[in-house]
This record gives sequence, structure tokens and C-alpha cells, in this order.
Amino acid sequence: MTANPYIKQYLMTAGPTPVPPAVTQAMAAPMLYHRAPAFDELYARVLGRLPAVFATANPVLAFTASGSGALESAVANLVRPGTRALALAAGKFGERWIGLCEAYGADLITHQPGWGARIDPAGVDRVLEREGHIDVVFGTLSETSTGIVHDIQAIADVVRRHDALLVVDAVSGLGAARMLQDEWGVDVVVAGSQKALMTPPGLAFASVSERALEAARALPGGRYYFDWARTAKSQAQGASPFTPAVSLFLGLDVALGLIEQEGLENVWARHELLARAARAGVLGLGLELFGDPDERSSVVTALELPGDVDGGRVPGILRRLGITANGGQDGLKGRILRIAHCGYFGAFDILTSLSGLELALDQLGHDVDHGAGVGAAQRVFAEAGVLAAA
Amino acid sequence: MTANPYIKQYLMTAGPTPVPPAVTQAMAAPMLYHRAPAFDELYARVLGRLPAVFATANPVLAFTASGSGALESAVANLVRPGTRALALAAGKFGERWIGLCEAYGADLITHQPGWGARIDPAGVDRVLEREGHIDVVFGTLSETSTGIVHDIQAIADVVRRHDALLVVDAVSGLGAARMLQDEWGVDVVVAGSQKALMTPPGLAFASVSERALEAARALPGGRYYFDWARTAKSQAQGASPFTPAVSLFLGLDVALGLIEQEGLENVWARHELLARAARAGVLGLGLELFGDPDERSSVVTALELPGDVDGGRVPGILRRLGITANGGQDGLKGRILRIAHCGYFGAFDILTSLSGLELALDQLGHDVDHGAGVGAAQRVFAEAGVLAAA
Repeated sequence: MTANPYIKQYLMTAGPTPVPPAVTQAMAAPMLYHRAPAFDELYARVLGRLPAVFATANPVLAFTASGSGALESAVANLVRPGTRALALAAGKFGERWIGLCEAYGADLITHQPGWGARIDPAGVDRVLEREGHIDVVFGTLSETSTGIVHDIQAIADVVRRHDALLVVDAVSGLGAARMLQDEWGVDVVVAGSQKALMTPPGLAFASVSERALEAARALPGGRYYFDWARTAKSQAQGASPFTPAVSLFLGLDVALGLIEQEGLENVWARHELLARAARAGVLGLGLELFGDPDERSSVVTALELPGDVDGGRVPGILRRLGITANGGQDGLKGRILRIAHCGYFGAFDILTSLSGLELALDQLGHDVDHGAGVGAAQRVFAEAGVLAAA
Repeated sequence: MTANPYIKQYLMTAGPTPVPPAVTQAMAAPMLYHRAPAFDELYARVLGRLPAVFATANPVLAFTASGSGALESAVANLVRPGTRALALAAGKFGERWIGLCEAYGADLITHQPGWGARIDPAGVDRVLEREGHIDVVFGTLSETSTGIVHDIQAIADVVRRHDALLVVDAVSGLGAARMLQDEWGVDVVVAGSQKALMTPPGLAFASVSERALEAARALPGGRYYFDWARTAKSQAQGASPFTPAVSLFLGLDVALGLIEQEGLENVWARHELLARAARAGVLGLGLELFGDPDERSSVVTALELPGDVDGGRVPGILRRLGITANGGQDGLKGRILRIAHCGYFGAFDILTSLSGLELALDQLGHDVDHGAGVGAAQRVFAEAGVLAAA
């Protein structure tokens, strides 16, 4: 295939997300021995920087793993056969909690209001009321498969009233959507390097409260690599328990510096504005948003593809335009497209995604008013003043 | 501290090992989405290349994890409370099998002839004879903590006669020491990216025979991320079950290409010659080798530090010379130094390590004949003709 010189490559997925050049450059440094002072310093600096992003005083435990590895750490440390667990699932990643809890033999209750729904805290309250004692509730901050960011603050209030532990999958949400672990009283928050933390995949995190660590200690065995107590003890001594992904630590250090420089509040505000512009663009094109998004849905915007196009072809056409974007997963395949704004994303990334969407729909025979979506999004940025010349 | 312009930095550890520049460069490419065709191709190519390094027809399962994660996969898939397991341990990494088996509740027998010993296959035979039925035997190819490479071929013969499964930790050995999984009849071989595979840490592998996969299927549950059947099924469909460490795959692809280019037999021969030179250098300095090395000990050379120096200071002095090298671990701290030759190592790396050792011992007051170690090693290279002008 001859390259089309009009086409450049744009990674517009919700994870892995684009990596800032400064992060990539840092990762190109010569390899470090993980027991040498140069790595010790790096390790301490990264572990020292992470808690701010979780808004916690907990030590944040770092694992060399995909995000799912840190999810598994929560189940391996808190669930035994017969443990009473409640999984809140309104999409693919919520359902991962179900698979994990089943693998570990939990006495499992599920609350599944359907893909695209926002979990209703009052509904969670009713389930907890009805079911009697529950040990652990598993939830999701940002459900990447549907674009919904759940109201973890309200869910945490409910769960604490029922005296259960709350574990939140914030893999795609952390750093993109507001998440105040300690203020909201969330026992465990799990995250990954490859989303709003702007680093390649391969590092995963669990911010574990003392209460959750106690609960884990009461259920020893059945785990080793993902054992929280082992990792916490080793980190407290300044050492990684296993050979860590050194190059990813080099990158993450720079990425966390970028977040500090921008300021976490500003990072959240940027994600919210990018999302608002994306939603305006979708509506400006006469399309509908998928599910039940609100101002919190700042990680990825899911839209319903129009009925007059073969939706399954949209990601492929976008790819021919150089844009790698997410269609729907599982039952939503061909029905939705997802515009990501998670991590290293700016205003023109949203405009590019919307342009690509317009062009793709046009190529599939949908009646497109070229620029209608882009223009609507652009107006949001113009009105917010974020692109104003200094 | 003002930099000393005479001092450059040399990573001389047995893992993480130095990364070839071409591998580093490949990892600096823009991030790829792991469900896009460009990654699919990369993933298929890497998974297609890996079995040759294991000398196996098995699919090699890839995990985003430290090497210990792949070790855990073997225990999580093959051990349940009461499973009869035998751990062969003659150093720190052999002992990791003990910790893992205990965490999973194995009915565990250990064979521990002491750090530095080479496991005697006849001794293993006697243990298996005495203990009656054993389900799984856990062993180590290269014991990095002592420099010993165990005779896995002979151990495999014994284990098969007793109808047990054999799992071998080849994390530091694979690609440095001869390992012929299928010919030797080893059921499971576990490895990591950061040793002789010349890639940063963060990927781990398990080459699993059909027989071992069957055994794992008979023990479902209690695992998810490290589940072999899930990973095998997903890989057979060309997809990573979880978001993989994309940048490390980019690097590993290039590293495997370098191994193919050199030829695996030549790679093994290079490691053996580097090791022979290192041993000659140690003896040329009037020092003694630690433990019971032989021609197989091609990954790392352990030497006993002389009694008239404070051995605990050697790694620090080497570091001031710009050389990061491994001292002893646990009970061997201060007693030994380890000269690595695992992965991206050439002749002059061995000479540099030996020079550093001579200078460090001199600084600590030991009577050193400068060049005696280097010269002895250099003679090995000269006689082998590998540095001859074309």
C-alpha cells in the first residue's frame, strides 16, 4: 500500500493513550539496575508522587502488570470462597469484577442495570439493604465501554453506611475524572499507567487503605505476586518486591511531573471541557449520545452511530484516515463509536476525531453537513476561552 | 558531586541487563492500540518467534509482569491445597518456588543442597523414590544468586521416570544457557524479558506443554490474570487477553530478531565463552570461584571475595567506577561478587568488569597484580579467535 501523504497517524483510543514525547524520551535512557541508588531515587520519587493523583494518604502499591492485574490484586487479597461480594456492573469493565469474583469463589451478588446506565446509589442501597451483610463492593469509576463515569462519592456514602469495603476500578478514570479517595472514603482504588497517566501499559496500581490492608491480612495465602502486604512492606523499605518495569517507571516519573505542572484540578477541568466539546460535536452532527452521560463523563464520549450506515465499518474507515478509535465492544459492536479524551489530549484532538467521524459517515452514505460537528465543538472551546491568544 | 570525566556508566548486572540501542529505539515509536492491525501483526510476529528460543512447539504464553509473575502462573495453575510438590532450591530463586508453593498451600517437599551447589539428578531421584507420588517438581535452570546452571536435561529424565510434571524457572537462563524444552521433555519453562532476551523488564513467559495445560484445566479457579487456558485461548485468536505492555513488545520484537540473526547456537556459544573468560580472569587474579560452576554456568560468574577485604564495600566502589554489578544476596552479602554475561554482553564487557574488580580490590588494600585477571580473560578470547580481524 502506497502511503497517502495527506494521512498521518493519530491514536485516539481510551487506552493505551498517546504518550507525550517527553515521556517517550525518558524511557529511552540506558537501563538501570533496580537495586542501584539511581533506581532507588526514581522509585521513591514515583511512589511519593502517586498518592496525590489518588487524593489519598495511603501508600500506592505498584505492580508490573496490566490494569487487570491490579483488579485481580483486590480480589485475591479480599475474596475467599464464600466471601460475600457485590459487583456493580454496567459495562465490560464492571463485568470483569464478576469474572474475577467467580474465579475466586465469592458468594457473589451482582447489580447490573445494563450497559450505558449510570449506577444509581439508591439502587445500591436497596441491594445492600435486601442482601444483609456484604463484605466487599466492587465498582467502576469510568466505564470505558460506555463512556459513563459513575458517582463514586455517592456510592461510597451508601457502602460505608452498610459497613462494607468499597473497591473502585479507576483504571481509565484516574487523572481524567475527579476521584478523591480519602475524602470520599473509598477503601481501595485501582489504576493503570496507560490511560490518563500518559505512560505505556505495563504498570498497575492499588491504593489500599489501612482497613483494607487489615482485611487482606486476615485472609492470607492463595496469592504471592499480587500480595498487598508483601508489596507494602517492600515499598516501605524503598525496594520493589520483584524486578519492576524500569523503563515504564522512567516514563511515569515524567508523566506525573506533567500532571503536577498542569495541576490536578486543571487536568480534571481540561478533561471535562474536552468531553463537553465532544458531546457538543456529536449533537451538532445530529447524532445521539449513548447511554446516560453527564458532566462527570470526562474520559470517553460514546455516541450512537446512525441507523443508515453500517456501523461496524466506521473504525476501519477511520483507520484508513489514520485515526485509531474505539468502536463498541461485545453487544455494542457496530452500534457505537467512542471519542477518547483521556490523558495526553488537547482541543485539536477532539476536532480531528470529529472531522474523521464526519468524513467516515459521509463515505458510508450518511447525509453529513461537513464541519457541523467540528464547529459545535470549536464553539465550546472558543466560549471557554482556553484557546485565546495570550 | 562533580562528574568524573574518566568514568562512564556500565550496567553489568544479570538483570535487568543492558538493552541494545536498536531495541531502545524501537520502543520509542508512537504508542499503538493493542486491538489495531499494527499491534496484531507485532503480537503475532513476537509470539511466532518466541518458541524457537525455548526450543519448543508449545505456544509460549506472554504476561505483562515481572518474571516472578510467570513463576506464580505455574503455581497458580498447577498447585492447590494438598498438591504434592517438590521444590529444588540451591539459591534465592530456587527458594522463590518454596514461597510460592507455600502461598498456594502445597503439600511441599524441598530438596535444598545449599547455595552454590549444583542439583544432583541422582539426589532428586532418591527424593522422588522416597516420597512416593509427587504431582509437580519445580526447578531452576540458572540460579542467578550463585551462578550455577543446573543440569535440567538429566533432572527432566529423572522426573519423567517418576511421572511428575517438571516446571523450570529459566528467567535468567533462557537464551544464555542451552535449554531444549521439547527434546528434554520439560513440561513448563518460565522466562522474562529482562535477561538474555535483552529487553527491559515487564514481560514474562510460560511455555506450557499440552500435558501441563490439561493438568491446569483440571484445577480451575483461584486465578484469572495468570490463567493459562484464558491466555492460550486468547493468543490462539491473535489477541492479548489484557492490555499488553505495547512498548516492551516493540522492543522484544527487535531483540528476538537480533537473536535470530546471530543464531541461537551461536548465542549460547558466546555466553559460554564469555563465562569461560570470566572464570579464567577470576582464577588469574588468584581468587576462587564460588560454588560448583561448570561449562554450563554461562549466565553469571560468582567469585569469592578475598578474606582480607571488606567484601560488602566492593559493589559500592565499583559503582564509583561507573560499574553497576551484583554482590551477593542474603547470606552471601559481602562474600561474593557476580560478573554477569547474560544478554547483550561482549568480550570487552568482561574485561571491563575484571578491570573494575582489580581496581576495587586494590583500593580496598588487597595485593593486586594489575592486569592479571584481564590478561587471563583476554587470552581466552585470543585463543578462541573470536576477536580476530576478518
